[in-house]
Amino acid sequence: MTAYDDRLERVRAGMKAHGLDTLILTPGASMRYLTGFSEVGHERLLALVVPKEDGAFFITPSLNAAQARENAAGIADIRVWDDAHGWEALLKEIIVDHTIDIGVIGIDDDMPARFSVVIQQLMPTTPLRLAGSAFSTLRAAKDTLELAAMQHAADATDALIPIAFAACQIGATESSVALAIQQAVSDAGHEPSFTSIVGAGANGALPHHHTGKNKIKHGDVVVLDFGAQVEGYCGDITRVVAIGEASDEARKVYDIVYRAHQAGISAIEPGATAHDIDCATRKVIADAGYGEFFLHRTGHGIGLECHEAPNIVGGNRTVLQPGHCFSIEPGIYLPGKFGVRLENIVTVTETGGARVLNQAIAPELPILPA
Amino acid sequence: MTAYDDRLERVRAGMKAHGLDTLILTPGASMRYLTGFSEVGHERLLALVVPKEDGAFFITPSLNAAQARENAAGIADIRVWDDAHGWEALLKEIIVDHTIDIGVIGIDDDMPARFSVVIQQLMPTTPLRLAGSAFSTLRAAKDTLELAAMQHAADATDALIPIAFAACQIGATESSVALAIQQAVSDAGHEPSFTSIVGAGANGALPHHHTGKNKIKHGDVVVLDFGAQVEGYCGDITRVVAIGEASDEARKVYDIVYRAHQAGISAIEPGATAHDIDCATRKVIADAGYGEFFLHRTGHGIGLECHEAPNIVGGNRTVLQPGHCFSIEPGIYLPGKFGVRLENIVTVTETGGARVLNQAIAPELPILPA
Repeated sequence: MTAYDDRLERVRAGMKAHGLDTLILTPGASMRYLTGFSEVGHERLLALVVPKEDGAFFITPSLNAAQARENAAGIADIRVWDDAHGWEALLKEIIVDHTIDIGVIGIDDDMPARFSVVIQQLMPTTPLRLAGSAFSTLRAAKDTLELAAMQHAADATDALIPIAFAACQIGATESSVALAIQQAVSDAGHEPSFTSIVGAGANGALPHHHTGKNKIKHGDVVVLDFGAQVEGYCGDITRVVAIGEASDEARKVYDIVYRAHQAGISAIEPGATAHDIDCATRKVIADAGYGEFFLHRTGHGIGLECHEAPNIVGGNRTVLQPGHCFSIEPGIYLPGKFGVRLENIVTVTETGGARVLNQAIAPELPILPA
Repeated sequence: MTAYDDRLERVRAGMKAHGLDTLILTPGASMRYLTGFSEVGHERLLALVVPKEDGAFFITPSLNAAQARENAAGIADIRVWDDAHGWEALLKEIIVDHTIDIGVIGIDDDMPARFSVVIQQLMPTTPLRLAGSAFSTLRAAKDTLELAAMQHAADATDALIPIAFAACQIGATESSVALAIQQAVSDAGHEPSFTSIVGAGANGALPHHHTGKNKIKHGDVVVLDFGAQVEGYCGDITRVVAIGEASDEARKVYDIVYRAHQAGISAIEPGATAHDIDCATRKVIADAGYGEFFLHRTGHGIGLECHEAPNIVGGNRTVLQPGHCFSIEPGIYLPGKFGVRLENIVTVTETGGARVLNQAIAPELPILPA
């Protein structure tokens, strides 16, 4: 049994548990998870249909038929429509005319209305349900093939660290540092996981700062948040450096965030919940007197999507499972001054401990030559 | 009356024509068109609600409330929800409990199922309809404010031409040329309209080639397709150059495509349809014996979205109207050899003629020093 057969079997079990009889998935992470194939969403319907009993097939416009046939899961049933006939006619023929017993349909949470509304109009009495929650639990625990891809993404992301550091020159704009990272990702043959965040000085105190024309100055603390996507899986790290020199406050805040990060990793043990990990990082920062400046959750699950389950946030009582992959990224943001966030990706081992996928974070604030 | 008041009034007329009683729009081009405000789509509901009679209001998560309040249209009714209560409760309070008479709901074609399915569940007997077609006609004809933004986008795009040409050095990868363009867009304080396409040699013969590690060689014909987005509006041009020298065939094909491009512009006259423009470019290429190598439509409408109405394609009998903005981009693609596509953006004037927003295209294939 291939990894894909196994995933399809687990998805069918999930469908039963959630009362779904047929899945219809448009391009995105869930299609890729089940088939190894996806394609940027466009205006034409490209869908994977999974009936609960057996079989699975693609509905594809003619221009994607060749790619769909090469899907890694080896799904051979490819049903092609062309612009002259339209997808509605094909879908009606397959489903409404009872080629399959449709029952309750599960669709992916991101399916655009241009498809979901028409599907509902074709089948006005059929309930449409969101299938996202069925998938999020499944996809959170990575299989061996996925863990290998996660490690490749982490390695490719780590390889960007020296490039990011070298680009942090006095007078360089935040944008130019982000572009240097992107160039390196591209030269390595990968895609970025997301648009890099580079925040120098006070901009680093805004967790979702839009990287811009601000120039790096002597004494700045610079937040660098970036990642490479490999084989569809996302890398994501954050490093912080000082330029030329660092204030005592910057060194102190870095030390607190570093200890919070380590506390988060140490808290990963058999039976621990996402909530427990969040408490562990938050406690270090609160005990140091900076609790009000830690503005966000401790981390997010990661895989085919950069943000997926499990959410490492207070109140999430999900027990961590082997194969879960997520970020640990506590931060302290001092308005008008600077920010420090330190992030690596970890996975939960078979024995319930933590394995860090990325290079170790420097225990003291790195100071780059001015 | 501001431009936004006028747009809202025209949208209400469109709602009546399409039998829609209430619009619910999530972030995207239509929200931006009506309010000047949008925000990258995320998992929390941010929506503009437009009842057919009067008034319009935002439903926003607390973290976007400040931005929503600053909307350029001056919509002052901002209804905020927070994570503790959720958006479903607020929407139910507003709509299901009959604060407004909901009737038939129109939603944007791109609304993710995570919202549309829940809206349908809250109002199981209320029909949901796609509002895209109501908007596409409205948004195709640009008003004065929009035409000014389209010209700014065209100017910012033209400013990239010398940078793109300078980056076309022997040994440079297609990716490095694309990144030079992106750096220049970023330095100018803009966003790219889309991921630049750079296709050297045989790669130029693939209209949707993925720009990659292929290196530019002496004698290559290089296709450069890029654009800057300004004030939300998209620029989009394509230029073609030869490196060091050009074959007779390359010069000949360029000349044919240039003449096809000019014929498309000349065909824009009062009463002309999108179909007529497509025929005009296609005839020049077919008469020259290359008809089978012109693989796509002549052009696409452009504005807040890079591809919108009117579609300049055979069979589209839409009569061109003042304010319509679209690309003219005929091409010839010779498999295994090279491709030539020449693209500028034009708008239809008040008197039904063409005004080209971009710099004139060189009438002969430019040869860059090797």
